[in-house]
Formats: sequence, C-alpha cells, structure tokens
Amino acid sequence: MFYHPFYKKVKSSIETRKTSLCIGLDPDIDRLPDHIDKSLKGLQRFLFDIIDVTHDICIAYKPNISFFESLGIDGLRLLEKVRKRIPDNLPVIIDGKRGDIGNTSMMQARYIFDYFGADATTLHPYMGLDSLHPFFSYKDRFNFVLALTSNHSAVDIEKKVLCDDQPLYMHVASLCSEWNKTYSNIGLVAGATQKELSRIRNVNKDLIFLIPGIGTQGGSYKEAVETGRNSENIAVINVSRSILYCSKELDYLIKVRKKTETYIY
Amino acid sequence: MFYHPFYKKVKSSIETRKTSLCIGLDPDIDRLPDHIDKSLKGLQRFLFDIIDVTHDICIAYKPNISFFESLGIDGLRLLEKVRKRIPDNLPVIIDGKRGDIGNTSMMQARYIFDYFGADATTLHPYMGLDSLHPFFSYKDRFNFVLALTSNHSAVDIEKKVLCDDQPLYMHVASLCSEWNKTYSNIGLVAGATQKELSRIRNVNKDLIFLIPGIGTQGGSYKEAVETGRNSENIAVINVSRSILYCSKELDYLIKVRKKTETYIY
Repeated sequence: MFYHPFYKKVKSSIETRKTSLCIGLDPDIDRLPDHIDKSLKGLQRFLFDIIDVTHDICIAYKPNISFFESLGIDGLRLLEKVRKRIPDNLPVIIDGKRGDIGNTSMMQARYIFDYFGADATTLHPYMGLDSLHPFFSYKDRFNFVLALTSNHSAVDIEKKVLCDDQPLYMHVASLCSEWNKTYSNIGLVAGATQKELSRIRNVNKDLIFLIPGIGTQGGSYKEAVETGRNSENIAVINVSRSILYCSKELDYLIKVRKKTETYIY
Repeated sequence: MFYHPFYKKVKSSIETRKTSLCIGLDPDIDRLPDHIDKSLKGLQRFLFDIIDVTHDICIAYKPNISFFESLGIDGLRLLEKVRKRIPDNLPVIIDGKRGDIGNTSMMQARYIFDYFGADATTLHPYMGLDSLHPFFSYKDRFNFVLALTSNHSAVDIEKKVLCDDQPLYMHVASLCSEWNKTYSNIGLVAGATQKELSRIRNVNKDLIFLIPGIGTQGGSYKEAVETGRNSENIAVINVSRSILYCSKELDYLIKVRKKTETYIY
C-alpha cells in the first residue's frame, strides 16, 4: 500500500504542505456567495475559483458526486470540468458510496474510475467482498470503505454489537485490513468520536483513513489528525461546507483562503 | 402502505396479469443480439423493443442506473428516454443503491425521484435512518432497503450474527418494519434461499419484497413468489439478464416474449 500511486501522492503533499486537509466539493446553488449568479455557470465559476485559491495548500479534493447528480446531466458535465480543473499532483476522490452485485459494481467502477477518472472513491461494505472486488481490481485506484460514519444514525447498524462482542464497524475494519493484504488499495471512512477512531486505528496501524465530520459536523481537526493518522503519519481529513460556504461576501475568496490556511499544522 | 400509489399500481398489475415479474433493464452493449449495432443507438432500439414487447405482461421495470452510468453522460440521456418509453401504468424502480449522510441523500433523492422521475428506488441501510429519511420523505415514492442480497459475499456482513442471536439482515428487516409504521413507503430487497426469505417474511407479513436472484443467479421464481409474497399476495420478483439476453438471433423478440410469458402463473 505504501507504494500505491494514490498513497504516494497524498504522502508527498502532507509532508511538503504540512496539512492533511482534503477539500470536499459539495456544490449547492442555494449557498453561493450573494453576487454569484445562481446558475450552473455561477456554480462552475465558484468551484473553479475555490480550486484555484486552495490547490497549493490542501492534499486532495473530494467531489461529492450526489451534489452534481442532483443537478441532472448538466451537473455531471460540470463534474467533468471540475475534475479537469484539479491539478494533476492532487488526487481526486469521487465520493460515490457505491457497491452492488459484482457485474453491477463493475459498471460503477467504470463510471467513477474510467469515465470520470477518479483516483479514489468511497464504498458501501454492506454486500461484502464480491460487491467491492471490481473496484479493488483497479490496482492504480484507491478505495475508502465505509466503516464508521459521522451521522447520528450510525447507531442503527454500524454500531450494532456482534456476537463476538465487537461493533459491526470494527468487523468491517478487520475485513478491510485483511482484504488489503491482497489488494493494497483499501482505506477506511472513519468518522465520529476520538474514542471510536482510536479503536479502529488499533485494528491496523497502516490503513489510511478518510475522516469526515470536521467543521459543520462538529469534529476537531487537530484531534482527528492525531488519532486518525497511520504509522507514517498519513490521514485524509475532509472539510467541505465550512470552507466552501464560509462567506457570502464579495471577498469570499480571501476568507476561503484564510480558512484553508487554518488547517496547516 | 396498502394505499400507497406504488403499491396500488403493483397490486393491480399482479391481480390482472397473473404475474409478479419485474423486468430489470441492465443494458450491456456486449450482449446485444448479433444484428443490432453495438452503439448507444443500438442499445436504445434494443431497450425500446424489449419494453414494447413485454409491457403488457409484467408489473414493473427496474432500470439499473449503474449500467447506464457506465456509458457516461450519453448513457444517462438514454435512461431519460427509456424512462419515458415505459407506460404510465407500470411503475419504474430505478435501482440506485444510494444512501449517505442526510444532506447528501437529499441530493440523491432529487436525482432519482425528481430528475429521473422514478416511482421507487433501492437503498443501502448501512448508515442508518437519518441517511434514508430524505428518501422516505418523498411520500408518493417507494423505497426498497437492502436486507439480504443474493450474492455469495452476503456472509461477510449481512449474515453476521448480532449479540441478540439474529443475523444483521433480520435486524435491518425489523428496523424497516418499524420505520414503515411512520413512513408507509418502505419495502425490502430480500434474495437468497427460501429458508432465509421465509425467515424475513416472519418479521412482517405486510412488507413488500423486491426479490432479485432469479434466472441467471439461480433462484426459483415459483418458490420466490410463494415464500416472498406479503399478506395480500404481493411480491416484486426481478429478472434481468435471462430475459434481456435470452437470444442473439434475429427473432430474439419472439424469444423475449415467450420467456416473459413463462412468468405468468
């Protein structure tokens, strides 16, 4: 895994830029700064500007494909353009939360990896290994499997306790740790409290975590870095709304830049 | 739930047509009949013809959005056209397997329900109720939550036994049964063996099941109907590949029609 192209890109950026910040691109027309046209054109201008003023002080971008999809086919055309705007040295994690039976997952992987050219994606573990295998088979791409998410309803299923006394998310983390011995391109989505994050980290010191829930959702960046980083001090901490929509004023790009700088160690 | 527009449409078709067959639309250019152009145009002709020769002897269509997505934006334009080709009396289940944190699920629901106009969809339960709520909130649409799927790797997570001795899929079925008291628009994806199907049915006699795994995947239609139907004899049994790709010959539409007729009781 330490030799995977996604991992190497992320590691290099973390070490030179002194940040673990991944910027989540969740385009929402209703939250655009006041002076920007509430249209797809306005949204494109906004996202391009966000990328242009942050790409030298973050380590990755995570476009949330559902936000683009909600705008229909024109929204997906925008995603194509946004993907091209992101400089080559920064990996693009298309947050798709996919997973289905094998022949369908293969189609999903083509969409995310081949069509949009994502370097990495996110996956639902519910259907098990054969539903994830088509993604894992893309050796030069990376996959973050949902272990524990940062929403309240994680208690409904993710935190249910199995008969061997461990919560389901710990079982998922163990499975991914095992699978990664074969595939070397698996990480975990691991959010929520520090206690839980540290518990998941104990399963495997090397797996890379994509950590959501910072900013608007209330988690602390500093604690997430400290608890979530792997044996080589690598973690991918995602912040979306609290950077993108930190201001509606004319000088919003100055504020976006300043906000992004606060994530430098 | 018995008064839900999706449920009423399905029930009416089952009663008049004497079949529980939902045809899954998984467009695959590589599997088109020999004489059809291996292009998007060819695929459109094929799907339109399939709909035209089957719509009076099935109860619903289930376009698998991932197959359309794998063809990129042009594939999604095809899905728009396919959706319009399906007659109004037949509900369209867009098989999307979505689910994410609330604000993202809201975007997913807009895409599936508003943009594509699906009557129903399929959802991953892993992240719990607040990840599903935006879908459930569309009162006139219907949602099939994954309980037990028909793939081998269902053992990895879905069949894991919880500390109260029930497998996870039974817990998901119980949750959905409970949630449905509030929302009245929830069913289950329930595949695999008859023993398991009957176990899930025991959780709730009324919930409607979408049952995959028939045909290519090896399940028996007759047994699925008998075990999977609810208190009003309603079940949605999906067959995709073994109808769509039953012949590559010039007379493939005759064979598709004949194959479809075998699902009439």
